[in-house]
Amino acid sequence: MNFTKDKLFDFLKEGIWKCIARIGILVRWIVLAGATGVVLGLIGGAFARCITTVTGFRTTHPWMLYLLPVAGLAIVAMYQLDPSRSGTNRILEGISGGKYVPLRMAPLIMISTILTHAFGGSAGREGAALQLGGSIGGTLGKWIKMDEYDQKIMIMCGMSAAFSALFGTPLTATIFSMEVVSVGIMQYAALVPCSIAALTAKEMAILVGAEGEHFTIPSNIPLDVRNITLVIILALLCAAVSILFCSTLHRTEHLYQQHVPNEWIRVVSGALLIILLTKLLHTTDYLGAGMNIIANAIAGEVVPTAFLLKIIFTAITLGCGFKGGEIVPTLFVGATFGCIFGQLTGFSPSLSAACGMVSIFCGVTNCPISSLFLSFELFGFDCMPFFLLAIGIGYLESGYFGLYHSQKILYSKTKLQFINTRTKE
Amino acid sequence: MNFTKDKLFDFLKEGIWKCIARIGILVRWIVLAGATGVVLGLIGGAFARCITTVTGFRTTHPWMLYLLPVAGLAIVAMYQLDPSRSGTNRILEGISGGKYVPLRMAPLIMISTILTHAFGGSAGREGAALQLGGSIGGTLGKWIKMDEYDQKIMIMCGMSAAFSALFGTPLTATIFSMEVVSVGIMQYAALVPCSIAALTAKEMAILVGAEGEHFTIPSNIPLDVRNITLVIILALLCAAVSILFCSTLHRTEHLYQQHVPNEWIRVVSGALLIILLTKLLHTTDYLGAGMNIIANAIAGEVVPTAFLLKIIFTAITLGCGFKGGEIVPTLFVGATFGCIFGQLTGFSPSLSAACGMVSIFCGVTNCPISSLFLSFELFGFDCMPFFLLAIGIGYLESGYFGLYHSQKILYSKTKLQFINTRTKE
Repeated sequence: MNFTKDKLFDFLKEGIWKCIARIGILVRWIVLAGATGVVLGLIGGAFARCITTVTGFRTTHPWMLYLLPVAGLAIVAMYQLDPSRSGTNRILEGISGGKYVPLRMAPLIMISTILTHAFGGSAGREGAALQLGGSIGGTLGKWIKMDEYDQKIMIMCGMSAAFSALFGTPLTATIFSMEVVSVGIMQYAALVPCSIAALTAKEMAILVGAEGEHFTIPSNIPLDVRNITLVIILALLCAAVSILFCSTLHRTEHLYQQHVPNEWIRVVSGALLIILLTKLLHTTDYLGAGMNIIANAIAGEVVPTAFLLKIIFTAITLGCGFKGGEIVPTLFVGATFGCIFGQLTGFSPSLSAACGMVSIFCGVTNCPISSLFLSFELFGFDCMPFFLLAIGIGYLESGYFGLYHSQKILYSKTKLQFINTRTKE
Repeated sequence: MNFTKDKLFDFLKEGIWKCIARIGILVRWIVLAGATGVVLGLIGGAFARCITTVTGFRTTHPWMLYLLPVAGLAIVAMYQLDPSRSGTNRILEGISGGKYVPLRMAPLIMISTILTHAFGGSAGREGAALQLGGSIGGTLGKWIKMDEYDQKIMIMCGMSAAFSALFGTPLTATIFSMEVVSVGIMQYAALVPCSIAALTAKEMAILVGAEGEHFTIPSNIPLDVRNITLVIILALLCAAVSILFCSTLHRTEHLYQQHVPNEWIRVVSGALLIILLTKLLHTTDYLGAGMNIIANAIAGEVVPTAFLLKIIFTAITLGCGFKGGEIVPTLFVGATFGCIFGQLTGFSPSLSAACGMVSIFCGVTNCPISSLFLSFELFGFDCMPFFLLAIGIGYLESGYFGLYHSQKILYSKTKLQFINTRTKE
């Protein structure tokens, strides 16, 4: 045996140092990601409550809608402060390319999203959460002089924290930041930081009174040939709706930019169009985030054309210059489309609505793992096989379209081949 | 508008063709992955029942253990038919490098695993499932003359199907095949095929009487500072146990090969050592898979040294030439270690055992997403935050060790950096 006392001592010393270094990394992230979670949990929770409050006020004061053009002008005026008109894509580029993520994005997106919701623009809030979280997280990382790699993790922590605070789904929030930038690569180095940030942020958001979303769907639906066939058909149709959603959003934006180059006129014309459509349709269902309509769809009640109208309202709102996310509208479109499919085919409308939500979420974000987690956090684990099929097929059949043009899809959806393509618009 | 009737017609025609092509891909995988699921569900289910039956027989006929050396000789004799002594690593290389996966692996691993379990070797069955599934899936793909990429997907389908049939966890089985080969890359092209194979295989396995595993743990454990601190400490210790487990397994194997070059003598000496240890310890707890001990640990009952003894028994069994998987032993070590941690600290022993299982599973396989899914499929979704922390920290702190030396870890565990390293032994 050539194992002397000295060698054993060296071996132990090295081992102990390695242990300390490893535990040091963990403690560092518990502190930094925890702090990010506290900050963004409080801000995100307050932001969520603001949106709920202004939405409540708008619902009881319908005349607010007539001020939508003014809100639009205010948003355009505010964004004069940000010459690069940063959006969610800027955050993704902050992670993939190390692009600088300005702190001014945070107040800008918060105020403009609240204005959009208060006066009836059709938009979500997760997009706002990603920008808010990404810019604050990234800035914190810069302030404490982290290296380039850790700054990126801080951007991801911020995204996860704000997403979790706003939607109450910490697991989805954790994985979404790791999955969305480069589809096919999982940035596991961010797993612990993002988990800590997301879990902390959720608790903070609850403290300030922002409760997460959870829906109840029936758990006893048999996994038989008929139901499997129906969920496969539903997923195929959802993939088509995903493509329709993405391309309508992007095309409307391009058409606006092309035909109405002046951004002040653009936002006013869009606002007027929203008012006109609302009056023509005699409904306010498509204004704001529409969480109540999502809840109705999951309960089995829906207007057949709801998903199409929501796509149109959202495309106009975001295309003409209002702010907010695309994700809640995605869930709205998925839930209403799924529900109507269920009613027409005799498949449980609640489960259909749930499958539609997560399938289209996957189709437009290209994030199957986040979609799976979202399905469990929103609806529980009982209907997992249906969600798995709806999400897998939604991913496979929705092609290379996507909400974020800064997103990259690294591997083919049909072959084990490296393709490294940007999403189509 | 330059949008003529002809253009519209061409556009529609192209769209319809694209749709048909896309649906064609889906239908093709429903048929092929479904068939793989049926075949491997039946074989895997029958295999699972065989193992249960022989384990039951061994438990009631303790003299079987004395024949372990003979079983070992039989296994060595059988493997003379496979000059390359293929194992799970060969399957991983089949996916990463396109290496040929021989069909003979399937009967060899099945019979040898049954022999190992029947006569009291300490081993699992998932490793067997991966080899069984991978070789049959890959061979099916070759027979129907698929291209190289699709053959790899077929290997993955087979792995997912057999894993799902043996353990009754289709979601984990689906993702594990996609995640384990190159950690950091998610082969989403295989998502739909693997899902279909895994879901089908589970149903088939139930048909032939192989029920999956599910454990009940308390769901009302508060996510407070004390419990979070305890789960973080548990996860740190689990990471250390993961490293100990992997290095003990690999070192024992190397030591055996170095000091006992003759494989006939090696297997007999290992078998004798197992018999001797069993007699010295007056217990048969560490023979076979030990699912009953796992169940006891989750119920809160455990012998303090169980995890260490299981590591030793498994290292001897697999190191000296017996066959079977490393995954059930991993779960055994995790459950018993977690349970004893819970008893010492006052943290719920059941939840501790559950967290220990998935944390060490993650530490030795380096597959955090599969580990998360495993935790939900085995224990439900209620304790998700604890599982998330246990798994994330288990991944981060377990270094670059791993069960499979053909596995690659593509990104650093601590930085967003491409490192492309093989796991350490």
